[in-house]
Amino acid sequence: MVKPEERILITDLYELTMAQAYWAHGVIGQATFSLFVRDLPPERGFLVAAGLEDALRFLEDFHFSPEALAYLESTGIFSRSFLDYLSTLRFTGEVWAVPEGALVFAGEPILEITAPIIQAQIAETYVINQIHLQTMIATKAARCLIAARGRGLVDFALRRTHGVDAGLKVARCSYMVGFQATSNVLAGKLYGIPITGTMAHSFIMAFSSEEEAFRAFAETFPERSVFLIDTYDTLEGARRAAQVALEMKQKGQRLIGVRLDSGDLLALSREVRRILDEAGLPEVRILASGGLDEYRIDELVRAGAPIDAFGVGTRMGVSEDWPWLDMAYKLVAYEDRPASKLSPGKASLPGPKQVFRFYDEGGQMREDLLALREERIEGGVPLLEKVMEGGRLLRPHPALTEIRERFQRAFGQLPEPYKALRDAPRYPVRLSPALEALANTLAARRGELGES
Amino acid sequence: MVKPEERILITDLYELTMAQAYWAHGVIGQATFSLFVRDLPPERGFLVAAGLEDALRFLEDFHFSPEALAYLESTGIFSRSFLDYLSTLRFTGEVWAVPEGALVFAGEPILEITAPIIQAQIAETYVINQIHLQTMIATKAARCLIAARGRGLVDFALRRTHGVDAGLKVARCSYMVGFQATSNVLAGKLYGIPITGTMAHSFIMAFSSEEEAFRAFAETFPERSVFLIDTYDTLEGARRAAQVALEMKQKGQRLIGVRLDSGDLLALSREVRRILDEAGLPEVRILASGGLDEYRIDELVRAGAPIDAFGVGTRMGVSEDWPWLDMAYKLVAYEDRPASKLSPGKASLPGPKQVFRFYDEGGQMREDLLALREERIEGGVPLLEKVMEGGRLLRPHPALTEIRERFQRAFGQLPEPYKALRDAPRYPVRLSPALEALANTLAARRGELGES
Repeated sequence: MVKPEERILITDLYELTMAQAYWAHGVIGQATFSLFVRDLPPERGFLVAAGLEDALRFLEDFHFSPEALAYLESTGIFSRSFLDYLSTLRFTGEVWAVPEGALVFAGEPILEITAPIIQAQIAETYVINQIHLQTMIATKAARCLIAARGRGLVDFALRRTHGVDAGLKVARCSYMVGFQATSNVLAGKLYGIPITGTMAHSFIMAFSSEEEAFRAFAETFPERSVFLIDTYDTLEGARRAAQVALEMKQKGQRLIGVRLDSGDLLALSREVRRILDEAGLPEVRILASGGLDEYRIDELVRAGAPIDAFGVGTRMGVSEDWPWLDMAYKLVAYEDRPASKLSPGKASLPGPKQVFRFYDEGGQMREDLLALREERIEGGVPLLEKVMEGGRLLRPHPALTEIRERFQRAFGQLPEPYKALRDAPRYPVRLSPALEALANTLAARRGELGES
Repeated sequence: MVKPEERILITDLYELTMAQAYWAHGVIGQATFSLFVRDLPPERGFLVAAGLEDALRFLEDFHFSPEALAYLESTGIFSRSFLDYLSTLRFTGEVWAVPEGALVFAGEPILEITAPIIQAQIAETYVINQIHLQTMIATKAARCLIAARGRGLVDFALRRTHGVDAGLKVARCSYMVGFQATSNVLAGKLYGIPITGTMAHSFIMAFSSEEEAFRAFAETFPERSVFLIDTYDTLEGARRAAQVALEMKQKGQRLIGVRLDSGDLLALSREVRRILDEAGLPEVRILASGGLDEYRIDELVRAGAPIDAFGVGTRMGVSEDWPWLDMAYKLVAYEDRPASKLSPGKASLPGPKQVFRFYDEGGQMREDLLALREERIEGGVPLLEKVMEGGRLLRPHPALTEIRERFQRAFGQLPEPYKALRDAPRYPVRLSPALEALANTLAARRGELGES
């Protein structure tokens, strides 16, 4: 549990040592840092930008509490006068960002911070941490959405997400892209996401029979029961569930569904559907869970499995096939001097930027142009918005439901080929001639310096 | 940021709905749940148990605050009388656990909780979440230790861990198994871990030349500078670092090291070592970072790369090759009645258990025997300890340095073959005849029921 007064310490030490060296040498000018993903994994045709709200909240609340300063002093690394300087430091900069729920591609800035370099430097670690996690998860969850083709999705990931913060952000980001609910109770409280759940095997086992367990649960929750039927034998479990469902029906209640959690989900869902239908229970839904991700959901849906909703847990919650993105936060300008880095495989493009998005006549995305921020590009819709100025938010944080709607609209504009779960074509992102010229000039100049 | 009064809501909803159904039906007896990893990934020859302290702190503090209850009431899911019951609920159970830093294998309980079933059920999600994350990361970090063969390791993962909680736990668990330090400042404060860091490319780029940046940093931190030398050209960077290091030497200061962060780390480390040695700077160390994990470190060390220490980030911090473990928390007994689950691929063994570890004459681990807890096994050293009784800790939480020492000892007792980074043999874990008999009896009995 991180206390608010400790939040500023969620940083790599070098942000703070660099800050002291900047400060001691009068390197206190305006810097622009750009946050972007260098390359997309082959299994990702797009990214869903997410995490901005947490990044902005960090900047709004940016300050070194007495408790944080006392710890820094205890390390013996920092000078007293620098710690005094930190004690009054606030974030006073400007932030441009892609709104949460919008789609981005490799090399496109998701967020750019322009601020006195010490502020922008100290913000690095937390800002990457949150936007990295949430963009990765929103993207992974959106892929589940593609695979599910309209069937329901719920987030069951909390127990195996990487810690509590991840558990909350997985609930938030999966809901953002269209999941219906989460099992995570605290996420329900914090984000207003509908919460849902079924029952565990332990519940069945704590009663002397499966039927007794079903009956007990239905008595307590006559309107919201989903029976887990695979504890001993799935088909026997389905028959017992059907029996209890019929008893409920006689009382005017309704069994919402049954859950399959192991075995051959395709074959079992067909047999269970048949058992339920033959019992006159076509309204009882089938929920499947257990090791699901977009690949497995895609197989089941393509095969026509009669599954109404999927409970998606671990593999979505840890973005199992790609549990990280190559996200960087790079200095692109210092005191109006554009900057770029030339390290092999890690080169960055100079200058504050804007992404201009072009649509075809049907409203479908056609291509993006990555340009310098001050360029005026005819016909392109700018993607980054100015969201903070002088350290103040320029608009309230949008509600999660609003972000969810934005994602729905944006996703509808992405042509189908880019939604392929594997080997999606690369969405076209061109560089503006001005940006390309600047990058080349800088590379050539540095090359000369390198040989001097 | 989770507030202490919200912590109890870090749970799947079904824990609470099951609780209400248990409560409504008088299912309030003592239950034992066992937490274990079903199977190890092929790349894991062992696991390092970790996360117990956080799990126990949750149980010590187990209570529903007025704020938590108000949210639960607002959902409309729970009855007023059940919420009243929750308002006075505390954890009063017993916990047996493998101490943090000890080694465990597939199927062995890491923790067992015996408590009134409602308490033990509600604890499930948080307890798994923390022990899963920390065991996974401690194990991954221990593999880096194997690969590094005595060279230094530091944790640089924070920016791309899955959220803040993961960042803290990665620092904790990597230090637990022998990392020297972390870049994570808050982890330094919370866990007393040494903090360390170098500089970023932005620092170099904010100055008008690389040399000027090096000199500025050295002036501010004459005793703790590590120069990042790959911003423009690594070998040029090394020459400039050497020059500044010589200036420092003349002032009686010492450059600690240089950091390589891109390119061919083997070839570059050799050339940089030569540049430093030829400049008369054999004491300047080489630190490497950038995409490292146990596999890459192993290659570099085997090839004799003159790298003194590795900064390990993302791939360790997300356990990139296996970002989850198949960890479960299963009911194994209810009111002295052993229980087991038969779901295909997810069967569990009944009864409270103990792991007895056998060592050879040289003190090396030979095999484990998984037995019922009440069995007395000659010559085997029991692995699980009773750490909580009546909801109270039986000993203070051990210091992280103490856990670190325990890991060192335990790891020294694991025979080398099980430390292979790939295709390690399976460490022998036998079942006691009594446990095997009980499991068979239960399976047969359930089989009969299944056909009834």
